[in-house]
Amino acid sequence: MKVGVLTGGGDCPGLNAVIRAAVRKGVQEYGYDFTGFRDGWRGPLEGDTVPLDIPAVRGILPRGGTVLGSSRTNPLQQEGGIRRIKDNLAELGVEALITIGGEDTLGVAACLAQEYGVPCVGVPKTIDNDLSATDYTFGFDTAVGIATEAIDRLHTTAESHMRVLVVEVMGRHAGWIALHSGLAGGANAILIPEQPFDVEQVCGWVTSRFRASYAPIVVVAEGAVPRDGDMVLKDESLDSYGHVRLSGVGEWLAKQIEKRTGKEARTTVLGHVQRGGTPSAFDRWLATRFGLHAIDCVRDGDFGKMVALRGTDIVRVPIADATARLKTVDPALYDEVGVFFG
Amino acid sequence: MKVGVLTGGGDCPGLNAVIRAAVRKGVQEYGYDFTGFRDGWRGPLEGDTVPLDIPAVRGILPRGGTVLGSSRTNPLQQEGGIRRIKDNLAELGVEALITIGGEDTLGVAACLAQEYGVPCVGVPKTIDNDLSATDYTFGFDTAVGIATEAIDRLHTTAESHMRVLVVEVMGRHAGWIALHSGLAGGANAILIPEQPFDVEQVCGWVTSRFRASYAPIVVVAEGAVPRDGDMVLKDESLDSYGHVRLSGVGEWLAKQIEKRTGKEARTTVLGHVQRGGTPSAFDRWLATRFGLHAIDCVRDGDFGKMVALRGTDIVRVPIADATARLKTVDPALYDEVGVFFG
Amino acid sequence: MKVGVLTGGGDCPGLNAVIRAAVRKGVQEYGYDFTGFRDGWRGPLEGDTVPLDIPAVRGILPRGGTVLGSSRTNPLQQEGGIRRIKDNLAELGVEALITIGGEDTLGVAACLAQEYGVPCVGVPKTIDNDLSATDYTFGFDTAVGIATEAIDRLHTTAESHMRVLVVEVMGRHAGWIALHSGLAGGANAILIPEQPFDVEQVCGWVTSRFRASYAPIVVVAEGAVPRDGDMVLKDESLDSYGHVRLSGVGEWLAKQIEKRTGKEARTTVLGHVQRGGTPSAFDRWLATRFGLHAIDCVRDGDFGKMVALRGTDIVRVPIADATARLKTVDPALYDEVGVFFG
Amino acid sequence: MKVGVLTGGGDCPGLNAVIRAAVRKGVQEYGYDFTGFRDGWRGPLEGDTVPLDIPAVRGILPRGGTVLGSSRTNPLQQEGGIRRIKDNLAELGVEALITIGGEDTLGVAACLAQEYGVPCVGVPKTIDNDLSATDYTFGFDTAVGIATEAIDRLHTTAESHMRVLVVEVMGRHAGWIALHSGLAGGANAILIPEQPFDVEQVCGWVTSRFRASYAPIVVVAEGAVPRDGDMVLKDESLDSYGHVRLSGVGEWLAKQIEKRTGKEARTTVLGHVQRGGTPSAFDRWLATRFGLHAIDCVRDGDFGKMVALRGTDIVRVPIADATARLKTVDPALYDEVGVFFG
Repeated sequence: MKVGVLTGGGDCPGLNAVIRAAVRKGVQEYGYDFTGFRDGWRGPLEGDTVPLDIPAVRGILPRGGTVLGSSRTNPLQQEGGIRRIKDNLAELGVEALITIGGEDTLGVAACLAQEYGVPCVGVPKTIDNDLSATDYTFGFDTAVGIATEAIDRLHTTAESHMRVLVVEVMGRHAGWIALHSGLAGGANAILIPEQPFDVEQVCGWVTSRFRASYAPIVVVAEGAVPRDGDMVLKDESLDSYGHVRLSGVGEWLAKQIEKRTGKEARTTVLGHVQRGGTPSAFDRWLATRFGLHAIDCVRDGDFGKMVALRGTDIVRVPIADATARLKTVDPALYDEVGVFFG
Repeated sequence: MKVGVLTGGGDCPGLNAVIRAAVRKGVQEYGYDFTGFRDGWRGPLEGDTVPLDIPAVRGILPRGGTVLGSSRTNPLQQEGGIRRIKDNLAELGVEALITIGGEDTLGVAACLAQEYGVPCVGVPKTIDNDLSATDYTFGFDTAVGIATEAIDRLHTTAESHMRVLVVEVMGRHAGWIALHSGLAGGANAILIPEQPFDVEQVCGWVTSRFRASYAPIVVVAEGAVPRDGDMVLKDESLDSYGHVRLSGVGEWLAKQIEKRTGKEARTTVLGHVQRGGTPSAFDRWLATRFGLHAIDCVRDGDFGKMVALRGTDIVRVPIADATARLKTVDPALYDEVGVFFG
Repeated sequence: MKVGVLTGGGDCPGLNAVIRAAVRKGVQEYGYDFTGFRDGWRGPLEGDTVPLDIPAVRGILPRGGTVLGSSRTNPLQQEGGIRRIKDNLAELGVEALITIGGEDTLGVAACLAQEYGVPCVGVPKTIDNDLSATDYTFGFDTAVGIATEAIDRLHTTAESHMRVLVVEVMGRHAGWIALHSGLAGGANAILIPEQPFDVEQVCGWVTSRFRASYAPIVVVAEGAVPRDGDMVLKDESLDSYGHVRLSGVGEWLAKQIEKRTGKEARTTVLGHVQRGGTPSAFDRWLATRFGLHAIDCVRDGDFGKMVALRGTDIVRVPIADATARLKTVDPALYDEVGVFFG
Repeated sequence: MKVGVLTGGGDCPGLNAVIRAAVRKGVQEYGYDFTGFRDGWRGPLEGDTVPLDIPAVRGILPRGGTVLGSSRTNPLQQEGGIRRIKDNLAELGVEALITIGGEDTLGVAACLAQEYGVPCVGVPKTIDNDLSATDYTFGFDTAVGIATEAIDRLHTTAESHMRVLVVEVMGRHAGWIALHSGLAGGANAILIPEQPFDVEQVCGWVTSRFRASYAPIVVVAEGAVPRDGDMVLKDESLDSYGHVRLSGVGEWLAKQIEKRTGKEARTTVLGHVQRGGTPSAFDRWLATRFGLHAIDCVRDGDFGKMVALRGTDIVRVPIADATARLKTVDPALYDEVGVFFG
């Protein structure tokens, strides 16, 4: 049995841990051979492979990124893409394909498995934690940890200068990183894409924080948007929610706060630092278990399935379930956290 | 309404986050007053209190330890202890008691609530993650993170000197910290209290690792024990499982490995470092949510209950459920991880 | 003897360690009393004080920021400022003033000491490490550590996506943070204010790095500027070196690299995260020793002096020496590091 | 020109950074070839080599340990050792030898260079920072950082339980790690090998700390010894200072403190964790500059010299100077720090 592995979409700490675990168990316990495909779906599309065996996965557990490379290539959008993938897999003798990726990568896997009988197993990956059907995805805990450490650091600057510090974190469509890091970092306001924010209310929190003689930290997801009444950037396009899509919402918000409260405000955009580097212990644990269970799916011939976390168990769900809808922050959970605002 | 809060047992990162969350929500949303009791059950036993209000919980979120102090005082073992607690609560006007602690502290709370009508709400706390009825307890993720970072560091020394490094981590009765940190740290053997180990097998793993030209890391829980055939320390007492109880199992194992494999071996005992310092983002999130839900139990008059994590939800369970039996590592999970040994 | 203490300018990890050390030694060994002035020179200017004794400095060693607050108030630019300071010091009975700050704050101290006989002792503080007369200033090591950790993280993203990553670090006039963190982080190009850069040369390094199948990291100080031939931003003013002053040089450079090399490039601006949070062990050591020696200057009546690091010794130099000229990166040192470019 | 490189003695974060820098500059700027010798002096003694070129040093900058391996083999103690080394170097065509190591490794290099004309260049390495002729050695800053972080963590446990925590850190003959980490970590007593300690005085500090309602942290170097009057361990041999040499001084001291003060005390022995893992930014900077300057010594034919740090400069000194005498903590410096005891 020869098993192919690919990683697609944005990189995420833990990808290498998945690969290592699947290969270790596949080789040692089931006697499988492995083929690595380079750069996501580009690999099987172009037959671009890389050797994948026990020596190839040595020492990669603590390393961020992916030894297989990644890309956003979508074979469904390429003339004859599916045919070429099937031909390449056949030629290489690859009888099962572990696809590690987010909404797009898994969407392709679901389609290939359902419509074209390609024996795919999915492993969910999104730094934003916005995939349905799994409690958490690996990479998220690492990102939250990095953002929290940054917020911890910013507190001292805020206090020393009595300034507002706005921290923009990742999260285009879902506010999970903002919510978790904001709560863990003791932020005084957390703004997420799911709940358009009221600039006046944010300014109210800022002012009340200063009244208690402390300087406020505002955590804002990159996809957060102000309420309609606050639309000031006419030249921005609407996003998929129909809301104004700001690039640089953190910068914009800091300026609004300065104008409306008279307090100095500064912005920090954490950016790519959140998705790189060594995975947290939690993410190594989760990613490793995903890899071990993915290879068990292969052994069981259980294709079209994705591994998922439920409580402390790894379960199998149809890949399509994961990509059917975005997992966004529940309003009740956001309300729960609101007690710390202001 | 006046609410008392106490923290009992060994300290654990996240205790302050629970206290802060309960007080913030209790004061701001429900208008409650709070009384802090000093040093676990010693506080209500002796009427020893400390002021607990919003200013008292400012800035404590990222701090390890507990601002209330802790002890292992058990009022059930004291003549008239229960009476004194009831009297002191009555005198202070405390109408609900949030008890944050492990098996012992919660055992007292369960008894007081069930048998004597003391209005207790429980919050589970154990660095070892061995309390039933909750997926995880706060403090555990921090401990695993610290142990994993230490193992990461030890790899380079092992490789440079081609030595065996034995790392002894916390876990007297359950191997959760060893299992998670050992897997996350890429250990070549993980020994836990639940599965008496075979020294010869460990030495086999060590030898096979060296054969692949890499130096082995062995992670051993402090409560791990060798199988009967390996009993060499006659003067040690039996523990609650009926196994030999070694103090210093790491040191003992390193000597055994040296003697049997001829390789140099060194031991590191991580000790108290694992339970101190700032909580991880995960633990701050979990502890804060426990605090928010504990005060909701108080508001609902839902006494005798403990808050618990199930998947991503906080639920309520009878306190007695948590303390009824130790949550140990499932043999199937240990087997799953075994693919990385050797 | 009553001693005043103030901290001016941007915050910097280690300020609290200086304050604590001076107070601890002043009280315990010399029996002095202390007065804290709020927000830099604003404190003595307005007679705004805060109590400063042993309990006030407990636990502040590991904390970033400054418990005294800071500002950029310059009394020399205020009508009658010097008179008001002298009056306030006299009224409060403050007989010596420890001023902890950078070029501006120390410039005032030097002037007050020399021209007006105010008994000032200086402690050098600049995150940028650009003060003459001392080998290092505290805060710098912490900033370099944070930037290096960020660069470490960005490597994995660069490799996984074969992208150029541009990291903008602090350093308006001196490239010390860029140089140290770039070298420690294994950057493939380091651009500093002292050496106007040639965009074509940077693109050459980027291309040659990709040729070796690795993705490049470019570290650029916020004050770095392109050479004249590359002046593309007509609307920017000239800075104090007479070079074009870009805001957002990182962003600009990434766009240039994309345009000229055809490779994807992304920017990360580390910002305020570099100056906040707990100081590194090195900075705590240096700041503490500065504090201990500053109070010894007071005891010796050695005013108009600043403490400074020379090798492993703390020495005293005239404050004016420190502020006379900016300490910039020596071209020879920059050349030495150039072996790692490309 | 072919250049050999070896690393001897205990591993130390930064060794790989030295190797990488020497090879990068040697190959790129001077066109040299390199030969790596395995496991310290064992390599040239047995002609055991490993390829060393630009690809071999890629990515090793942030890695602890040494890619060349290490040992404590001393060729001076082997019959015909020097002859074999000279023969092997000649046979391999190695015309210069960069030896990276501590007292022992450099002692051999000094002897070989002076007495036998072997063209050695030395790079000082000791985690303990006890080599003369250089302000600092790489690895030391990393070790101090790890120990300081551990002490930071232990504070919360000490406070929560009102216990004494004794932390044993590295340092057999010199107390540099104890002094720096103890001061940076806010320890209440620091005990070093250079100054035999008085147990009664330590207990006095412990007691006075509790009187101020805080729990004490005692940092003790592994080589610290009690004063003669406290000699309680008759069976221990005398060390090179003529003092009693305890193994486990931390454990012993904790028991003494418990017995004499009646307070609970616990010990943490940090052990190998202090010397492993990724080097700090400071150590990467220092190690890289040592490597760059070592290859310049080779180019200049300046053999028998060692690179050293003086202030911010790298200078060259006779190897023999570095090994002539141990650099211990100056009593005046220890006194300076003593203000924080108790």
